[in-house]
Amino acid sequence: MPPCPQPHYTLNMDRETLADAVEQGRAELHRFEALRYARLTESVAGHPRGSVVLPDGIVIPGYPSIARIHTLSAGLSEQFRGHFWAEEKIDGFNVRILRHEDRIYAFSRGGFVCPFSTDRLPDFIDLALFEAEPELVLCAEIAGPDNPYLEGAPAFVARDVALYVFDMMRKGVPGFLPQREKLERIERHQLPATRIFGRFRPADVESLRRLILQLDEEGAEGLVFKGESEANRAKYVTGSSHVTDIRVCSAQLLDLPPEYFTNRLVRLALFVTEHGQQDDPELERSLGTALLSGLNAAVELSRTRGRVDHRYRCRFRERANALHFIEHMKATGGQRVRFHPGMPRAVDGYWELEFDRVFDRMTGTLATALSGAIQFD
Amino acid sequence: MPPCPQPHYTLNMDRETLADAVEQGRAELHRFEALRYARLTESVAGHPRGSVVLPDGIVIPGYPSIARIHTLSAGLSEQFRGHFWAEEKIDGFNVRILRHEDRIYAFSRGGFVCPFSTDRLPDFIDLALFEAEPELVLCAEIAGPDNPYLEGAPAFVARDVALYVFDMMRKGVPGFLPQREKLERIERHQLPATRIFGRFRPADVESLRRLILQLDEEGAEGLVFKGESEANRAKYVTGSSHVTDIRVCSAQLLDLPPEYFTNRLVRLALFVTEHGQQDDPELERSLGTALLSGLNAAVELSRTRGRVDHRYRCRFRERANALHFIEHMKATGGQRVRFHPGMPRAVDGYWELEFDRVFDRMTGTLATALSGAIQFD
Repeated sequence: MPPCPQPHYTLNMDRETLADAVEQGRAELHRFEALRYARLTESVAGHPRGSVVLPDGIVIPGYPSIARIHTLSAGLSEQFRGHFWAEEKIDGFNVRILRHEDRIYAFSRGGFVCPFSTDRLPDFIDLALFEAEPELVLCAEIAGPDNPYLEGAPAFVARDVALYVFDMMRKGVPGFLPQREKLERIERHQLPATRIFGRFRPADVESLRRLILQLDEEGAEGLVFKGESEANRAKYVTGSSHVTDIRVCSAQLLDLPPEYFTNRLVRLALFVTEHGQQDDPELERSLGTALLSGLNAAVELSRTRGRVDHRYRCRFRERANALHFIEHMKATGGQRVRFHPGMPRAVDGYWELEFDRVFDRMTGTLATALSGAIQFD
Repeated sequence: MPPCPQPHYTLNMDRETLADAVEQGRAELHRFEALRYARLTESVAGHPRGSVVLPDGIVIPGYPSIARIHTLSAGLSEQFRGHFWAEEKIDGFNVRILRHEDRIYAFSRGGFVCPFSTDRLPDFIDLALFEAEPELVLCAEIAGPDNPYLEGAPAFVARDVALYVFDMMRKGVPGFLPQREKLERIERHQLPATRIFGRFRPADVESLRRLILQLDEEGAEGLVFKGESEANRAKYVTGSSHVTDIRVCSAQLLDLPPEYFTNRLVRLALFVTEHGQQDDPELERSLGTALLSGLNAAVELSRTRGRVDHRYRCRFRERANALHFIEHMKATGGQRVRFHPGMPRAVDGYWELEFDRVFDRMTGTLATALSGAIQFD
């Protein structure tokens, strides 16, 4: 193993800048057990929203948005000149995992310590890797049916959650580790990682088309294309992932921005027409089912229980982390999150939490409609 | 025939009130050939938006919005105490037809003289009825594939347009004629009218349920329930009409308010669950087809012609009215309406107009997407 390089932090923030940012409402101070940290709610001094400032001023940059291309043929040739890697895009939530003073934390996209992800890390990763590489930051997706944030889960995660590493950074250093350094560490530390389908050029449209159609068939979310630089990235998702997104969220149709649905419908049509899937009766039915199954279930919930909600379940190794999570959701989720009594409860060596998120507009609109009240459009 | 009653105008507006309303932007002055009139763009002195003020100050009230019930069982018992009539609701546009100084005009819901409807009246109605009843105002729906405003048409109007009378008023008099007086005039003047299914009570839920399911099957829009007073009305539409609305407008998904789609989806689920149509594969597919057929066509239009639009066609008896219509659309439809060269053209004894309405946001969004450009969500 090569000797650890001496850390050289080029990303940091002095106390005064941070204090100003907090005062301007561009940063918030938080605490997770012994760790005091700040998260940026807006960009500050060139650091993007979602960046985390550790107590020593070291900045962990926010994970950058990846731009979307809507067509494989035009998109690849427009966005890439040289080689790029194609990796699987997984439908979960994004965390940055790092060590600070002998503890390992997982930070959410927004820059919070995520009590759930932090708690579960030992189930997925041998954390001894941070002994060897204390400066490493793992960027990973956590996905699965028993996650506390998202309604859907990839078909290949049948229960609980799983973790997939897809990028690496160094604390306080801009940019990602080069692909080969990432691959070498994934192998060395036996890290769970997203599937990497290989290295391509823009002219490889046909093989990528076969690949995305295979992923579409599998129900996978799509691909992330990674060029040489951090800026030279793009995502391209499957048609079926749009239908899945619509299915898992149709019960909350009126509580999400309507663009959640309209944008996915337009993207689905772009995928369908690019890949000649027009007039596929199975696809058409799956879209209709995606919309109606959730909406019909919402009407039934309104009729039988007087409210429309979604039940979330997740489990923790440590009871304290479950309590941290409850506190976090109460602080950020407001009245809409209702924890069941007696939570967390011990189940199979874990501490399980169940809670409901209430969809206020669906609840109100359907209650009014079912009451027989009139409505003027 | 009874002698004509002497007109007694209780709805009128003096010049000063109208002038003030115009100054405040609540009324607009318009001219159609020799007729100078005003339309109310907001309510003025108790007269609702869409009301028309004739040169003598007589007010033709705006056609009132009809409130919607979302369930048959709860809705009827909540909204009606005594008897009510059930009439067919037709998917077209609403006009008020009246005589002023020996000419017959059709006014749109917004209070404009509609050159198209005004032109075509003799094709549907024997206008001699206004000799006998100069004070009568007919409220009618105009529907059919060759109409200049709407993308869809009822299945039972296979070509051109048809006209259906559903209410009657008197010039300058509040309220509608009682049902029996309306029926008597429909018969006497052989007027085309909406189907009237009979008189019901709130307890007649089962027969109305059978009726709405028959209309749903036929592809009809739905029912209007009319109680004794003008205020005591409600509409209840079929599930299939929501699917139809979505189908005819899905190509302009991003150009309509997204609530156009989300509201219809919620209403569809309310219909489906009330009538036990859950998990109907035909219905699910029809919804998916409704969304994808228009969206896929929009992508194809963008790819082949660089813009997304809808073609409208309609025909006029008089060339002058076609020219009035062009002028009206240019004044109100802006840049989005493009008339084909050489219009109007003589076809089968009529003057035919074809024009396209361009959907700007669909055109722009799809052009960007197909160019290969990236997009950050």
